[in-house]
Amino acid sequence: MISKAVIQELINELGKDNVISTPEDLLVLGYDATPGLHHRPDIVVYPTSTEKVQAALQIARKQGFPVTPRGSGSGLSGGSIPVKGGMVLCLNRMNNILEIDEENLTVTAQAGVITLDLANAVLAKGLFYPPDPASQKISTIGGNVMEDAGGLRCLKYGVTGDYVMALKCVLPDGSTITTGGKSVKDVAGYSFKDLLISSEGTLAIITEITLRLIPPPQTNQTMLAYFDNIETAGKAVSEIIAAKIIPSTMEIMDKTTINCVEDYVKIGLPREIAALLLIEVDGHPAVVAEESAGVQKVLKQVKATEIHIAANKEEALGLATARRMALSAMARVSPSTLMEDATVPRSYMAQTFAEIEHLAAKYNLIVGTFGHAGDGNLHPTVLCDERDTDQMKRAHAFFDDLYTKVLEWGGTVSGEHGIGIAKREYLARQVGSGGVAVMKRIKTAFDPDGILNPGKIFFDDQEF
Amino acid sequence: MISKAVIQELINELGKDNVISTPEDLLVLGYDATPGLHHRPDIVVYPTSTEKVQAALQIARKQGFPVTPRGSGSGLSGGSIPVKGGMVLCLNRMNNILEIDEENLTVTAQAGVITLDLANAVLAKGLFYPPDPASQKISTIGGNVMEDAGGLRCLKYGVTGDYVMALKCVLPDGSTITTGGKSVKDVAGYSFKDLLISSEGTLAIITEITLRLIPPPQTNQTMLAYFDNIETAGKAVSEIIAAKIIPSTMEIMDKTTINCVEDYVKIGLPREIAALLLIEVDGHPAVVAEESAGVQKVLKQVKATEIHIAANKEEALGLATARRMALSAMARVSPSTLMEDATVPRSYMAQTFAEIEHLAAKYNLIVGTFGHAGDGNLHPTVLCDERDTDQMKRAHAFFDDLYTKVLEWGGTVSGEHGIGIAKREYLARQVGSGGVAVMKRIKTAFDPDGILNPGKIFFDDQEF
Repeated sequence: MISKAVIQELINELGKDNVISTPEDLLVLGYDATPGLHHRPDIVVYPTSTEKVQAALQIARKQGFPVTPRGSGSGLSGGSIPVKGGMVLCLNRMNNILEIDEENLTVTAQAGVITLDLANAVLAKGLFYPPDPASQKISTIGGNVMEDAGGLRCLKYGVTGDYVMALKCVLPDGSTITTGGKSVKDVAGYSFKDLLISSEGTLAIITEITLRLIPPPQTNQTMLAYFDNIETAGKAVSEIIAAKIIPSTMEIMDKTTINCVEDYVKIGLPREIAALLLIEVDGHPAVVAEESAGVQKVLKQVKATEIHIAANKEEALGLATARRMALSAMARVSPSTLMEDATVPRSYMAQTFAEIEHLAAKYNLIVGTFGHAGDGNLHPTVLCDERDTDQMKRAHAFFDDLYTKVLEWGGTVSGEHGIGIAKREYLARQVGSGGVAVMKRIKTAFDPDGILNPGKIFFDDQEF
Repeated sequence: MISKAVIQELINELGKDNVISTPEDLLVLGYDATPGLHHRPDIVVYPTSTEKVQAALQIARKQGFPVTPRGSGSGLSGGSIPVKGGMVLCLNRMNNILEIDEENLTVTAQAGVITLDLANAVLAKGLFYPPDPASQKISTIGGNVMEDAGGLRCLKYGVTGDYVMALKCVLPDGSTITTGGKSVKDVAGYSFKDLLISSEGTLAIITEITLRLIPPPQTNQTMLAYFDNIETAGKAVSEIIAAKIIPSTMEIMDKTTINCVEDYVKIGLPREIAALLLIEVDGHPAVVAEESAGVQKVLKQVKATEIHIAANKEEALGLATARRMALSAMARVSPSTLMEDATVPRSYMAQTFAEIEHLAAKYNLIVGTFGHAGDGNLHPTVLCDERDTDQMKRAHAFFDDLYTKVLEWGGTVSGEHGIGIAKREYLARQVGSGGVAVMKRIKTAFDPDGILNPGKIFFDDQEF
């Protein structure tokens, strides 16, 4: 419990509207988008500037309570759940775009700006911010940086971290620091900008972000390819890359996903096929024409059952939107959805699909698989019911077996969702005790008192 | 002094040919390519495997002497000079390319492979490793990673670090760790792969590197533009980028550089002009044609005095080679060359040139400026004589003033050469005492005993 005096002190610093302390309001800030995980914070603050973040952090330090930074709470690994209570520091009222620099091709924004708002603002100036996480309509750019979010276009254009040029942040001791700048090259000292990316709010609180922009592609073409078995779809992905074509997007949906999506959005996806690939190529018109032809040639060679070219921008957008709906569509028909984030080197795509099918049968589970096939980044999702203890046990056994294979193939337990709380036990299996030891020392270097995200830093041994 | 017993122990572990201990042989390993800096090591070892690196490090730990890792010694900030003596651990006999993975578009190599050898090996398989530091004929890929080396093509393609997928390294405690992998996305825990990049051998010894490859551009076109004053060349660079054209290369040489290069390579560069830009566009033929036309349009608008299109590949290669010779060409005519590595946001290019001219006049110095104009990364080089104390004092004052401006404009004291010994005093001016404090804590997290590069970690206060 936080005393009235401390609440008043926070109100004095941040303003009445920016401090939440009633139990019913606190309840909703104890969740993110990860099923089955929640913990009520003791207090929630909404700082409106870097200075207010510092002020809130100083008060928390003085009182000795933990601080959990948060954006929109669209995270999928429980990284913004205040598992030890204390203060949730919510950055989504810091939502101003501070500058679009057309000469240096950069945008500087506060951490709480919604990703799609930022992308649209720069597009209005004829510039392009490529990373497009499926949650872009609600996620914040600060959250994207903290998770190093991917997206549909990341195959060709790279992930959030590839666009970060500078970060202004508040360190756990309350001091501020800016790392990086608008120079496109900078090797002055250790690159802790890059260390902060994907650090999930455990090392510092990011308040302002400068991102690199690029000229937008002149045109694009979207196509769908249908397959009568999913391994063939995986093979198509590998062979397109091996043909030295890097599409901007290469997304997969399996039969379960297709049917859930079609139930939801009703755009005429074929319910009987085993899998589809949503492929987009973009760039100069001549490149688009050649790459489109090259992709179609590979698709015919591997025997896709049908290839459908989007007739226009609206249809292409509709297809991408349908793909972005995959998780929501499954959540609609299933009480719980356990989604994972397994990523393998692309050459293991077909094997990964086969393994998912094999394990789903072994554990008698309904699994819908979709994801960023071109990146080797899949989201096998178990449709389940939290209340069914036996089913949940089988679901966890499924992922346990799957990750064993993924790691054997040189893959990772998280391609884009982070470790958070949900995957702590898998992390050590990937990076080993030596890796965990170095991570612990890095955490201590930044946050010796363990004020940020205690009890849910990646490698915390304690259960909550 | 290192005892005969310890030398014998090292010989037993590494083999006789891989241990150097005679004073005359040690002398040459006390230099890198930075003028005015040298310190003789006590012993030099050439490990031939990761295990041998571990063995050498363990012996050094036991004896309590410092270890300085080194590649070819082409570094330009003194990062591989063993300023506290001890062991130089030279990786250039670990020079095997271990795998070219055509399915996943990766190459894995030992740290001592020469950069150009690696680039040629992957090109023979129809793949492309873009980063091309000017020193690529002699530099090692391990050294490139440790400095996050840039190069001529980095404007469009990014720097070395943008291609690093995995690093195998030996930590200061002698344990090995692999960070990253062949998955194109990986957010499992802190990204210490990215922290190791540009850490200048102060955190770990990199032994194997996996790099991302891309399909090579189909074609390219090289052109030269001449200018009657250098600020106009700077303006041309900004305007080409503002026109949303990202050439693969946009290099500048001023009059002093042009004349030194022409004296050396005699390819008919015009001696009377104030500056030239070497510009290359690459990609699909249609893109090359359009971008080339777009670049020429801008060049005419800003009033370049002449535009010359390379007639063929040989001429283009000759021009790039001439540019790569810039430093050697100046070193040929001047007893000493003090080269710096100032980088500014691109919009400050013209001002930076003006400032360099102003300061050269103020301090009565001959300064040749060349570099990666498209990246805002310049190498103003003072032609001087180490033995002339007054001139050296003026040269240092020149750089001091210049960096004040560079930092005022949001630039960096090192775009690609690193901090090493040469720029320690500038680092704190850039990152502040808070930044230095975090860097010190990171160093301690990796290397609590300070065995790697002691006395020349970026922020060491001690002089040597």
